[in-house]
Amino acid sequence: MNFKKLADKYGTPLYVYDFHHFENQFNELKNAFKGRKSIISYAVKANSNLSVIKKFATLGSGADCVSIGEVKRALMAGVDRYKVIFSGVGKRDDEIEEALKLDILMINVESEAELNRVADIAEKLGVVARISIRVNPNIDPKTHPYISTGLHENKFGVDIDTAKKMYLFAKNNSSLNPVGIHFHIGSQLTELEPIKEASQIVADLVRSLKAINIDIKFFDVGGGLGIKYKDEETIKPYDYAQAILSTLSGLDVTIVCEPGRFLVGNGGWFLTSVLYEKVNGDKRFVIVDGAMNDLIRPSLYNAYHKIEVITDKNGEISKANLVGPICESGDFFAKDIELPSTNHGDLVVIHSAGAYGFTMSSNYNTRPRAAEIAVENGEDRIIRRRETFEDLIACEVDYL
Amino acid sequence: MNFKKLADKYGTPLYVYDFHHFENQFNELKNAFKGRKSIISYAVKANSNLSVIKKFATLGSGADCVSIGEVKRALMAGVDRYKVIFSGVGKRDDEIEEALKLDILMINVESEAELNRVADIAEKLGVVARISIRVNPNIDPKTHPYISTGLHENKFGVDIDTAKKMYLFAKNNSSLNPVGIHFHIGSQLTELEPIKEASQIVADLVRSLKAINIDIKFFDVGGGLGIKYKDEETIKPYDYAQAILSTLSGLDVTIVCEPGRFLVGNGGWFLTSVLYEKVNGDKRFVIVDGAMNDLIRPSLYNAYHKIEVITDKNGEISKANLVGPICESGDFFAKDIELPSTNHGDLVVIHSAGAYGFTMSSNYNTRPRAAEIAVENGEDRIIRRRETFEDLIACEVDYL
Repeated sequence: MNFKKLADKYGTPLYVYDFHHFENQFNELKNAFKGRKSIISYAVKANSNLSVIKKFATLGSGADCVSIGEVKRALMAGVDRYKVIFSGVGKRDDEIEEALKLDILMINVESEAELNRVADIAEKLGVVARISIRVNPNIDPKTHPYISTGLHENKFGVDIDTAKKMYLFAKNNSSLNPVGIHFHIGSQLTELEPIKEASQIVADLVRSLKAINIDIKFFDVGGGLGIKYKDEETIKPYDYAQAILSTLSGLDVTIVCEPGRFLVGNGGWFLTSVLYEKVNGDKRFVIVDGAMNDLIRPSLYNAYHKIEVITDKNGEISKANLVGPICESGDFFAKDIELPSTNHGDLVVIHSAGAYGFTMSSNYNTRPRAAEIAVENGEDRIIRRRETFEDLIACEVDYL
Repeated sequence: MNFKKLADKYGTPLYVYDFHHFENQFNELKNAFKGRKSIISYAVKANSNLSVIKKFATLGSGADCVSIGEVKRALMAGVDRYKVIFSGVGKRDDEIEEALKLDILMINVESEAELNRVADIAEKLGVVARISIRVNPNIDPKTHPYISTGLHENKFGVDIDTAKKMYLFAKNNSSLNPVGIHFHIGSQLTELEPIKEASQIVADLVRSLKAINIDIKFFDVGGGLGIKYKDEETIKPYDYAQAILSTLSGLDVTIVCEPGRFLVGNGGWFLTSVLYEKVNGDKRFVIVDGAMNDLIRPSLYNAYHKIEVITDKNGEISKANLVGPICESGDFFAKDIELPSTNHGDLVVIHSAGAYGFTMSSNYNTRPRAAEIAVENGEDRIIRRRETFEDLIACEVDYL
């Protein structure tokens, strides 16, 4: 990937995606489940650019969506409506109504209160709502507290007993059709055992539902496959699939898997240019034109991203903080890392920025959001143009 | 403030601002400095809505800006260009150039490298750049690490000796006119002593510059006046002003003060509606239609905001987490707070949301950003309309 050429052509800050990497990751995971019916359902929240979703759609991917906006993105990008799932703990009435009208695969329900609302809205519309229920198997995924979701102390899903009650309610309600079951114990999983344990618990629930004539067709194992940001142990897709398949003996279900970060994380880079170097006291700072509004993971999660500096300056390497222009001490990409001496205009490449990069970006400090570029078949093309000042004030200038 | 009526009229999630509160805060601070020439220069980054800036402009406010976008907002909203200051550690060349062409009061320079670039760009344009230099007085402001800025370990400003060097350089450079000095030791200051100490250090520097015929006209004390989120001790504007004035004897300078949070923080509320209640294990969750994409301060800083529930349900009060629909455990407004039992549709008012609320909001999870409403003279009006799905895809749909 010729980052320098792309930065020169499109300017910085810039997001660059390698669509071949996305494709390879998708195929590896799809193959891991071969021999079973499966739907790889891309978790749109990781990177919701329409062209990224379209790339996965052309590979046969479904879409895991967490808002009606994501559902619309998926359909607009060409995802088959029968592969679109609408998840999330807080769906508004208008979102449920629109999802039912769009006739997507299923609504993934996360609470009893929500199930009641889906039933009411489906009845009002005169349709039958296909639903799955998100089960919280109370398994510690051993990941960052902000991205762990499968313990009872989290807001996600319902416990096994509540799930059973909800499936019975759905079975006896003519506006509901319980077709799926779902669990997701956390993001960036790096151990196999928790996923296997969770899958076993949920598979046992499917068996007990079958005994009372509730026939679950979609076994949705969520996402959470980790990627290497630095030196993390990661799970191989094949081992991951085997762990899940080993819990499903005797069950005729379609596996739904909802990877996000795994598909796009390491196929994305954030490019930013050096503005200034300065030394305050003992601290060296390299100030770049990208900031926390562009990529908030370091500030929000203290996340690690590999940093690469492209410079022809032949200076010393020393410790520095890599920071942005925003007026907060929390605006940093890395602290106390070894960086070469830089010139104004040198390029800094921030790796593993394909997931939860652009999607979390904001206009804080009235900073236009970066452009996004796709590289495929040796060609680069813009897939989202850089915002302008006019874009930023578009919703308010008429009221001035 | 009739929050229920506003929520019914405009929908939720919604930001509401009380322009009278803004005006009262402005006048209190302006009066505190009376007897001295002063410019209250609103820190646009706290709340950059054009109508909010315009409100302050009509009161005579200047604007403290940290990007060329904020400079443009200020001018568009009617701020006098000779009261506009451009600060920030990472100004791009094109930003410096545009600021010089717009002939604003001064560029606040934060490093030697930046001073060189400002000089070069001014020379190229054939103009003289009015500058101030941000001095880092190495004072512990005793606030949150993310919002403390006046220690050497922060990226902001330069130390006293470097500042002297830079002023000499500027004096001897025909493209530079050093007219100001600036310091800002942190945000949400709750103690008087650090500000006085810092002011004394910087005033002494002004005296020593005067001795070598560098005549500083603008003494910019930054911002940082705290507000009460919960039960913090805050500084009274009068005491704050006196502390600063006491360090300035013998100096004929215009005081520039750059409040942001102080002016708008407690005059803003974020309104959100209850979607569902659920209990997972021992944990009760109240799920609302607002989320971390709308107001990230709790997730990012673990910040406290007072929560008020408007309900006619006569239920029990018990501990709960107030959370949003975003698929992250980090998506919360408050944890383990006492909340009454709620109904679907009940209104939740999140207080002290006028500063660093909307400005930091994003479209994460493809969530349209909230509308903003101004209340003034008993009338409410929209000052930024709610985003639509079409707004969110506007920069990318042409590339699909």
